[in-house]
Amino acid sequence: MIAIAVLGHGTVGSGVLEVFNKNHESIIQKAGEDMEIRYVLDRRDFPDVPYHDKFVKDFDVILNDPEVRVVVEVLGGLNPAYDFVRRCLEAGKNVVTSNKELVAAKGAELLAIAREKNVNFLFEASVGGGIPILRPLSQCLSANQIVEIAGILNGTTNFILTKMFREGMAFADALALAQQLGYAERDPSADVEGGDACRKVCILASLAYGRHVNPEDVHTEGITHITAEDVRYADAWGGVIKLIGRVKKLEDGRLFAMVSPAFISRESQLATVDDVFNGILVRGDALGDVVFYGRGAGKLPTASAVVADVIDAVKHLKARKYIFWEPAKDGYVCDYLEVPAAMFVRIAARNRAEALRSVHGLLGSVTEVVAPGVENEAAFITPTLPEGEIARALQALQALDYTILSTIRVLDY
Amino acid sequence: MIAIAVLGHGTVGSGVLEVFNKNHESIIQKAGEDMEIRYVLDRRDFPDVPYHDKFVKDFDVILNDPEVRVVVEVLGGLNPAYDFVRRCLEAGKNVVTSNKELVAAKGAELLAIAREKNVNFLFEASVGGGIPILRPLSQCLSANQIVEIAGILNGTTNFILTKMFREGMAFADALALAQQLGYAERDPSADVEGGDACRKVCILASLAYGRHVNPEDVHTEGITHITAEDVRYADAWGGVIKLIGRVKKLEDGRLFAMVSPAFISRESQLATVDDVFNGILVRGDALGDVVFYGRGAGKLPTASAVVADVIDAVKHLKARKYIFWEPAKDGYVCDYLEVPAAMFVRIAARNRAEALRSVHGLLGSVTEVVAPGVENEAAFITPTLPEGEIARALQALQALDYTILSTIRVLDY
Repeated sequence: MIAIAVLGHGTVGSGVLEVFNKNHESIIQKAGEDMEIRYVLDRRDFPDVPYHDKFVKDFDVILNDPEVRVVVEVLGGLNPAYDFVRRCLEAGKNVVTSNKELVAAKGAELLAIAREKNVNFLFEASVGGGIPILRPLSQCLSANQIVEIAGILNGTTNFILTKMFREGMAFADALALAQQLGYAERDPSADVEGGDACRKVCILASLAYGRHVNPEDVHTEGITHITAEDVRYADAWGGVIKLIGRVKKLEDGRLFAMVSPAFISRESQLATVDDVFNGILVRGDALGDVVFYGRGAGKLPTASAVVADVIDAVKHLKARKYIFWEPAKDGYVCDYLEVPAAMFVRIAARNRAEALRSVHGLLGSVTEVVAPGVENEAAFITPTLPEGEIARALQALQALDYTILSTIRVLDY
Repeated sequence: MIAIAVLGHGTVGSGVLEVFNKNHESIIQKAGEDMEIRYVLDRRDFPDVPYHDKFVKDFDVILNDPEVRVVVEVLGGLNPAYDFVRRCLEAGKNVVTSNKELVAAKGAELLAIAREKNVNFLFEASVGGGIPILRPLSQCLSANQIVEIAGILNGTTNFILTKMFREGMAFADALALAQQLGYAERDPSADVEGGDACRKVCILASLAYGRHVNPEDVHTEGITHITAEDVRYADAWGGVIKLIGRVKKLEDGRLFAMVSPAFISRESQLATVDDVFNGILVRGDALGDVVFYGRGAGKLPTASAVVADVIDAVKHLKARKYIFWEPAKDGYVCDYLEVPAAMFVRIAARNRAEALRSVHGLLGSVTEVVAPGVENEAAFITPTLPEGEIARALQALQALDYTILSTIRVLDY
């Protein structure tokens, strides 16, 4: 009998209990070992749940029970999750987590402890919720060099952008609706400012390329500045705006990573990923593009990914799975301003023809974009140039007294 | 040093050598063991390839070399692949194959030998080419009950249907183009009559539900009868026609499986899977829908899935992976005529109103579908009824001297 402990009885934690109990028989069969959830750690009391006798408030009870071989951390946040997970691994217990903040900040350190102690540290649910992505990336695509990864990694912002596109809602209204439906937190900043997607990009990048990437090294823009006019331009151009997290290896061995809103063509497989869904495109050198699509969050989808990791941990109590990456290194993540991009730009302009002449002088040949009913401005897509060059040209344009209304990258996935 | 043998140097076999050599360093690193491809079995000579010294014509050389721990079977077809694979497994060698015909016909038997001999029999490349689907199904989704699976599993027919939709091509012209581009064989029957998709459905069904499903037990219709008029009706209805393979568990424990063309809504994630791409939707009880998208065939995508299985086999030389299903059983796969469906039907009719009155009398309330420019016929979608009842109603309609021009299922994914 393998004993399991669950740290945290919030949304995901209670979902883990629900999935584990509902599909108990087939889970045991797939794991090949009998298992029980012996402890649930939470500061609060839950007298009404059928498993109320499993609750403990003292972490040491779990740490000191040698029969607990797998610990599920679903507290979220860095503290006390980091301390608990580190001590569990050091005590030779396997750990499964859905905590993207923890993995993005401390993944390399925790994986090193897991390797030293010959246990598993698994975190499939930390990216894409229930969508299988980390295991396919590390196992199924293992014969490929990963060329790049680009994904819609945050369901809340994707819901907001979908409402802005389909129903012409303003950002603030779409956000309010997302909050009302429970898709967005009362403090939505981690979602709408791109921080959540950034952590997921860091985890994907660390796993795909074998070296830890810290969130603070990834240029991150959110969607708070996206307006109804931007949406109309994207539509007129033949695409949609999505918050895209992406990462690729440069030829010199450094890494490029970014989170930002982007124009993508309606023909893209990512363009049809709407509402709270996530979609992740992985480009392999042998494989070409594969896309993984599904619910990137939610109680039961996330919990089912956690429980699948528990099954995998139990099956690999003897043979450790090979998931590992090196610690972060200075200079590994490049400055995004070095990397070529094409940019959609809107500038205030009473005289559009004159404005575009000034733009042409600074940026060369641009592609004008016209949105029906939008007046007193000019909009265009720049040639593909290093972002630093584009930024300098736009500064020069401001020096000519043009106001920059909006800049959004144009991607080609 | 682990020695590997490759049986067959056709498209996939030469791709395996190419991927293995190109990404050799990272493959060795991921496997955690040094590996070499020691033998390539083929009846033909390949004096010009750099690894010409590896070729052998005698299978026994491979079978009798105890250092060969992994054998890759990419011959295709049942003979001699079945005999070779069986003998390798019996000799305690791990086997990786891309051969869907072999797995669909003999999977249960070969998995049983593998279990007895404590070796792995892996076949990720047999479904979806390079798209990770079997491993996610058996591992990542292991905490879910699989409610159903529906997929576009054959790239050739999807290419043909895409050309019929986008460019208004007739079936014969689209097939000829597919042959010209190398997407279809000179004898295209296994693709266009649905046999290839059927084998993949059998493999998915066997793995998802734990019991072997034989191809001859799965009702299979191809796309040879799909006409330009059908395409126009689907478009007018708001969707596309795709060849869909699907499987689900019925409440009584039996299995429903079918391959057939189907109307699906433009809003479906499967509707945007075009050209030679494959897309597979898996519905889990906890997870909801996930979709896997990518190239379902082709030399390097398929080879990369084969090599990933080789890496996995080498990593699991001691700890066998849990992939297993029971032998087929009579009565396990239900008669499709029992299962409810909605059907798009076209009948020849000079007087449409009169024809629809007759239809109404036999089928109850149907939804008429009108395609611009199509005359002298009536078209409608039946209510959802057991297929047997629909078939009887259509026989009665024929008895009233109406000719049935076309019947295509309407699916809701």
